Amino acid sequence: MEKISVGLLGFGTVGTGVVHLLTNEQEKLQQQTGLSVQISKILVKNLEKTRKFDQYEQLLTLDPSEIIDNPEIDIVIEVMGGIEEARRYIHSSLKNKKHVITANKDLMALYGNELLQAAADHGCDLYYEASVGGGIPILRSLTEGLAADRITKMIGIVNGTTNYILSKMSHQSVSYEEVLQEAQALGFAEADPTSDVEGLDAARKMVILSHLAYSIPVTLEDVNVEGITRVAEEDIQYSKKLGFAIKLVGTAEVEDGEIDIRVGPTLLPLNHPLASVDNENNAIYVYGKSVGETMFYGPGAGELPTAIAIVSDLISVVKNLKHGSNGHHLFLPNQKKQCKSADSIESQYFLRLHVKDQPGALSKITGLFNEQEISLLKIIQEPLFKEKLAEVAIITHTTKQLQFEQIYQLLNDLDSVIEVKSYYRVEGMK
Amino acid sequence: MEKISVGLLGFGTVGTGVVHLLTNEQEKLQQQTGLSVQISKILVKNLEKTRKFDQYEQLLTLDPSEIIDNPEIDIVIEVMGGIEEARRYIHSSLKNKKHVITANKDLMALYGNELLQAAADHGCDLYYEASVGGGIPILRSLTEGLAADRITKMIGIVNGTTNYILSKMSHQSVSYEEVLQEAQALGFAEADPTSDVEGLDAARKMVILSHLAYSIPVTLEDVNVEGITRVAEEDIQYSKKLGFAIKLVGTAEVEDGEIDIRVGPTLLPLNHPLASVDNENNAIYVYGKSVGETMFYGPGAGELPTAIAIVSDLISVVKNLKHGSNGHHLFLPNQKKQCKSADSIESQYFLRLHVKDQPGALSKITGLFNEQEISLLKIIQEPLFKEKLAEVAIITHTTKQLQFEQIYQLLNDLDSVIEVKSYYRVEGMK
Repeated sequence: MEKISVGLLGFGTVGTGVVHLLTNEQEKLQQQTGLSVQISKILVKNLEKTRKFDQYEQLLTLDPSEIIDNPEIDIVIEVMGGIEEARRYIHSSLKNKKHVITANKDLMALYGNELLQAAADHGCDLYYEASVGGGIPILRSLTEGLAADRITKMIGIVNGTTNYILSKMSHQSVSYEEVLQEAQALGFAEADPTSDVEGLDAARKMVILSHLAYSIPVTLEDVNVEGITRVAEEDIQYSKKLGFAIKLVGTAEVEDGEIDIRVGPTLLPLNHPLASVDNENNAIYVYGKSVGETMFYGPGAGELPTAIAIVSDLISVVKNLKHGSNGHHLFLPNQKKQCKSADSIESQYFLRLHVKDQPGALSKITGLFNEQEISLLKIIQEPLFKEKLAEVAIITHTTKQLQFEQIYQLLNDLDSVIEVKSYYRVEGMK
Repeated sequence: MEKISVGLLGFGTVGTGVVHLLTNEQEKLQQQTGLSVQISKILVKNLEKTRKFDQYEQLLTLDPSEIIDNPEIDIVIEVMGGIEEARRYIHSSLKNKKHVITANKDLMALYGNELLQAAADHGCDLYYEASVGGGIPILRSLTEGLAADRITKMIGIVNGTTNYILSKMSHQSVSYEEVLQEAQALGFAEADPTSDVEGLDAARKMVILSHLAYSIPVTLEDVNVEGITRVAEEDIQYSKKLGFAIKLVGTAEVEDGEIDIRVGPTLLPLNHPLASVDNENNAIYVYGKSVGETMFYGPGAGELPTAIAIVSDLISVVKNLKHGSNGHHLFLPNQKKQCKSADSIESQYFLRLHVKDQPGALSKITGLFNEQEISLLKIIQEPLFKEKLAEVAIITHTTKQLQFEQIYQLLNDLDSVIEVKSYYRVEGMK
């Protein structure tokens, strides 16, 4: 049987998962591809570290050129993370006619087009299913399963850490800080959680999804990003009372060729399929012009789920090798980028306000919305006896963003309003 | 630009959807494939019928050989339905080296292996994404996206009609008969709904999914099938009170190489992602050894969703034509079939009983469960004043099917039990 040689760049969590599958699922791989797929070299930073799979000790190397310049290696799997080194190694691998599989969302969000172009130039494969949604085959679903459709909108829960934090805050009524500490202790959040909790990780994934769904070369700068650090327990409790869950979601929407991408805490109706995506799970909800609404749900991270995405990519690359069809499955953006202008962006909004506990306060607020021609879908007022004030939570009907920004200002200026405590977008209403 | 010729067998609902996409999305098709894809002939039963797309009038034919024996046609799309004729036409098409796309679940469930073998013999493609889950790209997800994993179980809501009926029964508290009539009036149920409401349609889809997920050549006879006609409003109400939804689901499970496939009304916990799959939507929940739990959700039927699946298949076939890789994507079962024996099948169960309204009745029932070593998870008793009896609903912990059948018998024989009104399996508990 013909043997395919694989070089691994990195032997961390995901790398270990890949080694696990290539070791224990050799039979499955052979059934799928008809070929034997073997690991030839593994790039590590430390030769001495104790590892789960010590039978590969003699394959470890500190020298990347033993993989990227090795004529016997057919396929390079990049699971080292980081940007510049990974970028350089992938470029060299492609130049040396090696097919590449990567799980690196940071790299693909920043330099995806450049790397895909290099793959095209060298007739190589470049697969990156693991970069978004862990074990969920969302990239394939967009580029193949829904290939015939025009995607109009995606709403994604694409960051497991923040979904875990918001789920716990909702189900156990604890504060952001408490849950974050618990999540860090359990390994669901990094010691420095900035990239997750500030929404940057989700933004990178929305850039990758937008390239594939819309064929538009967006960059990170095009994404309006807000994290979850200012989400208060009260926001979650009032959302629930109004029939909504708060999730950190990415939305990417195209209308008349204009795109709008954003990441932020967002209310979803409790009966929406995304609302029950809990804990560290991910889901991408896709609106297609013809197909309607589909959703892809699963584990967004983790050693083995991510490794499944990588090894499924590997199976595709090996099949392509067998049939001589490498380099034919690259999706480079072919549309021009045009971003939606602020005055055409519309949404529904949630608002929570502290209001003076005096007669007529609520009527002044609703009067202001009426004046500004923003209709209200739901409203709750509850007393906060201790603080001698009232709390008001509102869901609006769809309104222009500019109009909303205006009323936000006017509400803060209103005598009976002490403070607008928070506001978020609302998605997923019919 | 090179032109690819397509012949359509059938011009009903789905055929019209395909023609719609091939007419209106030509630009998208060319972007995806780099080729021009044109309809050459359409087989119809009646030349005179008025149709949405009258510009194709001169392409209509009553003679199948104008498609299946036409040397100018590269790809045949079968959307005529039925078994024997469709089977013959597909065989002839493959023999004539035409690639085939079909939406025909009845045919693929019965003769899938025979047709896939024929496709393999002639080096042709045979794609059938539309046969399960309408617009949901579930077949691709099983064979490509999750290619590296070992699937251990699938739970599918794969019939839109019964899901519509059960959703309405649950949300509007109306009887099966009333909703069925309404569904027929709205076109969500056929005039003769037998195949849907008796679970046969779902069984066919579970056979197709099992071929791909487990590579086991199961047949319809291997599926234990029960429909929804005996689901009472009371079952739904008690399920809700216990925290569950009743759905018609197909399950296909493999343990130690032994398979168990069944279709029947089943309780799912309300917080399970499948429980909120409502109305005519479908979803397939997949358990993978490494990936964990994933779910694929979307419209299970309809003119355009089904057409999206077919035209996405078409894009794959055209790309294969372009790169000379046709016939390489056929999945024929390669494992032996071994069905799970009755004594190794386990499940949780729901039971609803009518019980004499007398002291000690409930204790006799729970005593019997205790004696038979079946533990109970939840139990509710409510009086039915009018009938002077009590109604008891029970959820058991996991128990052997044989043990359950035994207690079912013993309960019916118990003096204080008037009748076991219904029982169903419970799935999706952690």
